[in-house]
Amino acid sequence: MSDGEEFRDLGPIFEPKSVALIGASNNPLKWGWVILSNILSHGYVGSVYPVNPKEDDILGLKTYKTIFEITEKIDLAIVVRPAENVPQHIEECVEKEVKSAIVLAGGFRETGKEGEELEREVVEIARKGNLLVVGPNTMGVYSAPVSLLAIMSPISVVKGEVSFISMSGNIGVNLLSMGSTENMGFNKFVSIGNQADVTLEEYLKYFGEDPETKIIIIYIEGLRKGKKFMEVAEEITPKKPIIVLKAGRSAAGAKAARSHSGALAGSNMIYDAVFKQAGVIKVSTINGMLELAKAFIHLPLPKGNRVGIVSWGGGYGVVAADACEEAGLVTPNIQEKTIQELDKMLPAYWSKGNPVDLVGTLDRSIQPKSLEAIIKDENIDAIIASGFLIGGSGIKFASPEALKKGITITERGVKLEEGGISMEVLAQKWMRSSDEQNMNKINELVEKYQKPIIAVTLTSDTKAIPKAWEKNTVVYPTLEVAAEALAKMYEYKQYLEKKKEQ
Amino acid sequence: MSDGEEFRDLGPIFEPKSVALIGASNNPLKWGWVILSNILSHGYVGSVYPVNPKEDDILGLKTYKTIFEITEKIDLAIVVRPAENVPQHIEECVEKEVKSAIVLAGGFRETGKEGEELEREVVEIARKGNLLVVGPNTMGVYSAPVSLLAIMSPISVVKGEVSFISMSGNIGVNLLSMGSTENMGFNKFVSIGNQADVTLEEYLKYFGEDPETKIIIIYIEGLRKGKKFMEVAEEITPKKPIIVLKAGRSAAGAKAARSHSGALAGSNMIYDAVFKQAGVIKVSTINGMLELAKAFIHLPLPKGNRVGIVSWGGGYGVVAADACEEAGLVTPNIQEKTIQELDKMLPAYWSKGNPVDLVGTLDRSIQPKSLEAIIKDENIDAIIASGFLIGGSGIKFASPEALKKGITITERGVKLEEGGISMEVLAQKWMRSSDEQNMNKINELVEKYQKPIIAVTLTSDTKAIPKAWEKNTVVYPTLEVAAEALAKMYEYKQYLEKKKEQ
Repeated sequence: MSDGEEFRDLGPIFEPKSVALIGASNNPLKWGWVILSNILSHGYVGSVYPVNPKEDDILGLKTYKTIFEITEKIDLAIVVRPAENVPQHIEECVEKEVKSAIVLAGGFRETGKEGEELEREVVEIARKGNLLVVGPNTMGVYSAPVSLLAIMSPISVVKGEVSFISMSGNIGVNLLSMGSTENMGFNKFVSIGNQADVTLEEYLKYFGEDPETKIIIIYIEGLRKGKKFMEVAEEITPKKPIIVLKAGRSAAGAKAARSHSGALAGSNMIYDAVFKQAGVIKVSTINGMLELAKAFIHLPLPKGNRVGIVSWGGGYGVVAADACEEAGLVTPNIQEKTIQELDKMLPAYWSKGNPVDLVGTLDRSIQPKSLEAIIKDENIDAIIASGFLIGGSGIKFASPEALKKGITITERGVKLEEGGISMEVLAQKWMRSSDEQNMNKINELVEKYQKPIIAVTLTSDTKAIPKAWEKNTVVYPTLEVAAEALAKMYEYKQYLEKKKEQ
Repeated sequence: MSDGEEFRDLGPIFEPKSVALIGASNNPLKWGWVILSNILSHGYVGSVYPVNPKEDDILGLKTYKTIFEITEKIDLAIVVRPAENVPQHIEECVEKEVKSAIVLAGGFRETGKEGEELEREVVEIARKGNLLVVGPNTMGVYSAPVSLLAIMSPISVVKGEVSFISMSGNIGVNLLSMGSTENMGFNKFVSIGNQADVTLEEYLKYFGEDPETKIIIIYIEGLRKGKKFMEVAEEITPKKPIIVLKAGRSAAGAKAARSHSGALAGSNMIYDAVFKQAGVIKVSTINGMLELAKAFIHLPLPKGNRVGIVSWGGGYGVVAADACEEAGLVTPNIQEKTIQELDKMLPAYWSKGNPVDLVGTLDRSIQPKSLEAIIKDENIDAIIASGFLIGGSGIKFASPEALKKGITITERGVKLEEGGISMEVLAQKWMRSSDEQNMNKINELVEKYQKPIIAVTLTSDTKAIPKAWEKNTVVYPTLEVAAEALAKMYEYKQYLEKKKEQ
């Protein structure tokens, strides 16, 4: 798209039928080994050709002296060679009629005049041969449809519906890994590097038109072509959400961005206006990108901004109400019939309103029941459920007697007894199984009523959360993040409504 | 202090020599069992007397029909009986000359007119007999000096230097548990409940004068006596920090607070002015209380607001610079000699300034070295170290070849070989041991240079953080929290300087 070109088909980058790895290595400490390991371990569906003049076999694959030895046509060449060797390899790729190349090496425009010259040379050669170039100075590409993990870090990626464009390789790869650990899957990823040839706007356009991509997240430090970005984004946002973290907002951040990506940060007001106009959702933290993407993937959009708060403990209700109002949401009264329904399950002295405090009752079966009563209330568009996932490790019964005897469940309740189940183990099991019931109920109710429910955990129990990730229940560590996510989803909902009217 | 009384000695509550548990139970599902289990498990140093007319033995302890059967004097009675029975038990406590009582039951002022009457009755009886009353409607008290965990949840508490006053029992107990899981120890805790007798200001005064309390954290929804609070706080803050979360800031939150604690939330501007005048540090999130307390306990105050940023990956440097500036901190240039020193360890194309990007180098031994170069720079008052704790679970080498063969370390590097160490295990071990080296170095440098260093982790690896908790290295999940903590510490430092000048 640079220099007046049109948007090109990026299929050879994201859906290549064959990949050559120029600079493949037998040394596990080299990128040329890590990338091949990643490609093999993720089960890339096409043909893989390691290229290295000094090796015959790498990771069990026949290795080629040059790409000219490969008889098959090559869609994508991954060039893992130092900057100074790149022009020659790109030249060879053009000669071999390779369709696209990822150039990983740094040492180009980001390092000064000489590197800039080298970068220009690479692009010139590539353009003449209709070769698409990703980077240089990129950490690579991931694509779920062909199971291609062409990334220079040894990570594992879960397949899903989020596609991710990152101006920072490290943030990109780290979020891929974090998201995958949290079971948030990705469809396509690109670390755009110096954008010498293929630009941010071209990737965005491609992901926008890609039917497998349901959400796009972007990390940027600056835009070279704000107007182009806006035009492309505006076409996409009525169909799928775009979430952006724009770093380099402050003077200090902008200075750091110039040094990092060479981005000219520009005025925040202009960025805000561009994003708003194009219906792009702005977040202000790195984790916010993942958190919000999760909500968009797993939850329906709220039809309004009226939040029901359910909390295990009144203080959390107060804090949640603050968080909602501060995020621009409201916490309206619930209907009289909802109050009557809750009256039947809660002690007489409950709050009789929203926030609904479950008054610290130990009977956790009230939690899922209360959720259903509230989610079907016509005054309520979404729920924040605080204290619904708490894990069990905080629970300690360590009295010598309890540990020695354990307990036995009797008809009249429980009693301490030799040979019974350890009280602590029992309580932890009970907490974890109540957590799981809550997750199941949340998932069921979201599906049934098509309203978002977000769980907030109040625990440092590191075992409490992975289960929720596994089940795709949206759970956040804090009430503030939950309120912020609902607010952004509602903002996007409003944007869609406005677009429909137009 | 209510009704014109002076500040009383709360020793009988927090350092009792003997405790009676009125309503002790043999049923592990009753608070009267849980509290006794907690008291025994935490090794309370004084005498414990369970009281229950129907039992002879609870958890191996002789049980008394009434408190009059106990021959020893009682400093603290914990009353685990329903509201309607409380006046009678308080009456008996007065007769027995018990010095203090914790009344756990709800059903008093917070439930309406009748409860209010009952509460007034309890206070009247108690005051006549010089009996201090905690609550009612409280979840209890913790005190490290006598190892007393008189709390109605089965949690475990780590001893330390933070004392905590909470207007919400659930938030209080949950933070006690979370803090302890994260190895942040507490000295004293009180869930103040309805403050029918002993008030927030009395607890604050007591903790202020308590030599074992180094930091005070407070959760409040409103103050009944703003002026009194300010007077007490103002005496304390020059000696030790007070961190407050004031909930009920928004209209929705204030409404929820009225329903929860009956607190009249009042104007935020007035609260802000009171806190500012008294040198009280305000946080706006629940987790913020813990996070900030950790920084205050484990780190020296920064002498200025000049932050050095070290990051593993340039994007993180940009985001950190934004976070610092947005929190009111600056990221100045580092000295020429620091640049020269870093030049020796980093690739030629590093940023040559602050933020210091370690340019994604895989040699993590550079991380601790770079820290020392920066922390001794005279332009720098504090460091945020991003990507210094990353865990290992994100690393996956799953190629069939690597898994089958494993690697062997040779003189010339490493090679794939039968019977070698699994590459994945090796990499994870290496990551974790590098993390540990970083923590040790951070702790050593903080001690040596008396400047705060905060690590930021970039991982969902649930194993990565507990080690840092264990070592008391201050680590946060996000750059924003790190910047916020440094800003609050600097704010307090400035307050202390101003106080000194006066």
